[in-house]
Amino acid sequence: MPRDGRVVRERLQQAALELFSEHGYDGTTTTQIAARAGVTERTYFRHFPDKREVLFATEEELRDLTTTSIANVPPGTAPLLALKMAFHGVVPLVERSRPLAEIRIPIIMTAPALLEREYAKAAALVTVVAAALEARGETPRTALLTARVGMDAFSTAIRRWNTDHSGDLHHEVDEVFRDLRSLTQSLD
Amino acid sequence: MPRDGRVVRERLQQAALELFSEHGYDGTTTTQIAARAGVTERTYFRHFPDKREVLFATEEELRDLTTTSIANVPPGTAPLLALKMAFHGVVPLVERSRPLAEIRIPIIMTAPALLEREYAKAAALVTVVAAALEARGETPRTALLTARVGMDAFSTAIRRWNTDHSGDLHHEVDEVFRDLRSLTQSLD
Repeated sequence: MPRDGRVVRERLQQAALELFSEHGYDGTTTTQIAARAGVTERTYFRHFPDKREVLFATEEELRDLTTTSIANVPPGTAPLLALKMAFHGVVPLVERSRPLAEIRIPIIMTAPALLEREYAKAAALVTVVAAALEARGETPRTALLTARVGMDAFSTAIRRWNTDHSGDLHHEVDEVFRDLRSLTQSLD
Repeated sequence: MPRDGRVVRERLQQAALELFSEHGYDGTTTTQIAARAGVTERTYFRHFPDKREVLFATEEELRDLTTTSIANVPPGTAPLLALKMAFHGVVPLVERSRPLAEIRIPIIMTAPALLEREYAKAAALVTVVAAALEARGETPRTALLTARVGMDAFSTAIRRWNTDHSGDLHHEVDEVFRDLRSLTQSLD
């Protein structure tokens, strides 16, 4: 996307979040979002297929960065450790998106259709992570289980970081993987 | 629910699955489902709030059995081991539901709205499992991480059992927890 496209896209996101906060998700139209962002409704639909998608605009960036980070882990690293290392590379994006996340999470919670879309996006991300692990030579069986458990660990770390207002997401990532390790010790 | 209610409910489920297979999900109405089951449409809506829900009718039974099985694990059992033991108690229900699952999964895959509802139900089940672990004295932090990872393991076991057409879900449950154990050994 050219630089101008990205600027318009971010303006539309910002306008949508403001309007959703002011009038609720159901009380806002794409016409109003476009007007607030100073573009036509047609431009809105060039960037987002429907009203819901504007809330999920960072997903694509998150997906691409996650894939790249996994690919960049040194070959031969065990799969779950590889994910832990890769997630540290994704931390800056999550930190940068925090202001957006703080507005969008309460909005998503108010509408079942939005929450369901959120779950579907999370499931799609697991598929992407599994594919990235397969590209590193893991079997599909191992890749899927590792992707599921790894994404749970990462989203738990983000949730703790949001809930506890702790300062450092890197620290939460390390801690959740330590917790995971100690949880499984009972399985011997 | 009285026994008669359960019979009607199962007849409605069966009728819905037949019609969805014949005409697709979008090509079927609740009127047709009720007619095929030999009841009025009003009876349909006494059992299910909308057309989607008829596909998720076993969820409630699964949720109740999961909660009971977790509560029945001997006190003092480590949380992830407790889940593994509890899932063995849920296996017979999953095995019994296989004919239904074989019809409903391909239907759910065809409609994004159904798939999103499926994800939301899975997320709700994680919340239920976490609450059951808290009732056993686990902290909310430990309960949530354990519930997420445990449900990942169980759904992976079910998926492998469905994909590989292997005979024994108990065996798949044991194996996926062994895999989980060995995955986390790289984290030391």
